[in-house]
Amino acid sequence: MIYLDNAASTPVHDKVIEEMIPYFKEQYGNPSSIHRFGRIANAGIQNARKSIASLINADSKEILLTSGGTESNNTAICGIALQNKGKHIITSSIEHDAILEPCKRLEKDEYRVTYLPVDRYGLVNIQDVKREISEETCLITIMFANNEVGTIQPIKEIATIAHENNVVFHTDAVQAIGKVPIDVRELGIDLLSISSHKINGPKGVGALYIRKGITISPLIYGGGQEDGLRSGTENVASIVGFGMACKLAKENMNQNINHFKNLTSKLVSKVIKEIPGSTLNGHEKNRIPNNVHFTFLGVNGEDLIIKLDENKIAASTGSACSVRTQKASHVLKAMGFSHEQITGSLRLSVGITNTEQEIDETVETLKIIIQELRAVSPYKSKYNF
Amino acid sequence: MIYLDNAASTPVHDKVIEEMIPYFKEQYGNPSSIHRFGRIANAGIQNARKSIASLINADSKEILLTSGGTESNNTAICGIALQNKGKHIITSSIEHDAILEPCKRLEKDEYRVTYLPVDRYGLVNIQDVKREISEETCLITIMFANNEVGTIQPIKEIATIAHENNVVFHTDAVQAIGKVPIDVRELGIDLLSISSHKINGPKGVGALYIRKGITISPLIYGGGQEDGLRSGTENVASIVGFGMACKLAKENMNQNINHFKNLTSKLVSKVIKEIPGSTLNGHEKNRIPNNVHFTFLGVNGEDLIIKLDENKIAASTGSACSVRTQKASHVLKAMGFSHEQITGSLRLSVGITNTEQEIDETVETLKIIIQELRAVSPYKSKYNF
Repeated sequence: MIYLDNAASTPVHDKVIEEMIPYFKEQYGNPSSIHRFGRIANAGIQNARKSIASLINADSKEILLTSGGTESNNTAICGIALQNKGKHIITSSIEHDAILEPCKRLEKDEYRVTYLPVDRYGLVNIQDVKREISEETCLITIMFANNEVGTIQPIKEIATIAHENNVVFHTDAVQAIGKVPIDVRELGIDLLSISSHKINGPKGVGALYIRKGITISPLIYGGGQEDGLRSGTENVASIVGFGMACKLAKENMNQNINHFKNLTSKLVSKVIKEIPGSTLNGHEKNRIPNNVHFTFLGVNGEDLIIKLDENKIAASTGSACSVRTQKASHVLKAMGFSHEQITGSLRLSVGITNTEQEIDETVETLKIIIQELRAVSPYKSKYNF
Repeated sequence: MIYLDNAASTPVHDKVIEEMIPYFKEQYGNPSSIHRFGRIANAGIQNARKSIASLINADSKEILLTSGGTESNNTAICGIALQNKGKHIITSSIEHDAILEPCKRLEKDEYRVTYLPVDRYGLVNIQDVKREISEETCLITIMFANNEVGTIQPIKEIATIAHENNVVFHTDAVQAIGKVPIDVRELGIDLLSISSHKINGPKGVGALYIRKGITISPLIYGGGQEDGLRSGTENVASIVGFGMACKLAKENMNQNINHFKNLTSKLVSKVIKEIPGSTLNGHEKNRIPNNVHFTFLGVNGEDLIIKLDENKIAASTGSACSVRTQKASHVLKAMGFSHEQITGSLRLSVGITNTEQEIDETVETLKIIIQELRAVSPYKSKYNF
């Protein structure tokens, strides 16, 4: 099997599993307990928190541990909104549903939300941000890198505008973390969401960076864990695993980025050269190095995924999380793509375990499958494939 | 080390770990993905859901997977409250903070909450429930078994009263699950919260049983997982582990209960006989078999925990989750205990790995430590120890 869906989820690194196991078998205490089982579990969490903080150049006191990226995003948005009843939020039209859905929920509660447009490369326009900010704006939330097309937004510029207007700036960095160096201080980020399972850590754990001085309301109430901001017995083993994943991501950042770039640039140049009617979507330069997103004219992306799967290649049309809604990609729509362009899209996302040989094999398979699919395509005569 | 804090958290069963590992190493797909990695991950979840449902005689469609007991409780309470703006909730004064805190939060949003009193054994009075129900009541939430003193409430009777008045009935069964047989149909429960890490599963995963026909609002919005009721990439490995923990809990229920009863009855009879000034708290009969809760007059419980820890015995004064607040137990207060009685309390909770020999050793250690502590107690002259 060739796994090219690392943007959806990644294999857990052996060192991460190794780190987790003792917290299942021996150090199973409740981190709130006074006795040594509790103290050891708690020490494991605090140590992991340091590694998580270090990956984004934050202080460990600024790291709120959550059950994942979606909870981090919900906590950020609702956590700020609850302190600013009925005010205004700015986001983009290409955010993940974990941003769009809480925003829609707030609109029902009489909050106003602006969904900024993007250009055909998926970029938000700084001037739009400036124009939409008002006295009423309490939060700007713009994703770091898009989960479908990989486009990286001008985060520092948006953060600067936010702060010039005393607005809190949040970014969903779930797809960016580990793929580009992120320094929350240098970029001026107030709140930042990350997830463990996108960087070879376990699923079910994530973090929200909350810059010192920013106050949010909790989403989940109870025993007062995480300074009262996220109650519930801490997911110790997973947190410890997430910590190790962050440590590895930091240590191997340059090496990983080079590896990703090497694989994706090979993939892009071969596909564009060898498969006619193919285009690379998203921004040419401002993109995360592990993502490629193609449109193959005259091909149905879903059919392509199924054929690739039959040929032992795991890929995606876009966001895994949107599969159940069966809707056409709101990201590509916002980028001005036609129905046909959207239908023919394929996302291939590489990870640390992929090899050059896998890329070669994938291109060869793609060539054959796309020819097959085009032979029976309703667009056959249009393009004369 | 002797671990007698199984009410706080439990060791993860070897078979559970065995079940989880492949979902870290090989079956790491996102369960929403169309390809085989995704399908296998999803099949793992659905299989686990069946085991979880089976433990409480529910249908697997009635199981909502969450990040743990606290999230389950928050989802139940807020999920019903959001559909009944400003209405009335009945709970008890001895609930876990994961119930009390969301209720307090709702009071700030103009909901009315009644906190029922309990008798000195920790029992809610059925007549109180009847009296407090009104046309405005939308939810009754009463815990199945108390986390400190182990008292089991008259769940079936309360559920019956709730339904006679068209009120939804929720119970926090985090401490009861695996310790008493629970049949949601026979008991007439509408919503029920359980947690994996109290029954030898991993931390960070739990479930909310939602009876078919009951509608709740979500707490976390996003990609629409769990039928839109709980968004976020599913915590596959932990869910699979939780499923195995439920399967084992069901298969070994009678054997485990006998084991717990054997250990706790030995512990109680020895302590009461051999340590003067000791009493068993909670209900004599209506209690979960793995919990004992003592008061030792003239002893400070915190000192006792620390001394026990030095002697390699892990125990607790009450709820692990309340440690950080350093407040006197609200449970014992509600049961009418004096400050001195509360201060001298100790919870010992046994699990599947404990042995009779450990109980003997614990009693011997307790005898020595309590004598030592009483020798320097400010209450020394009062009791003439």
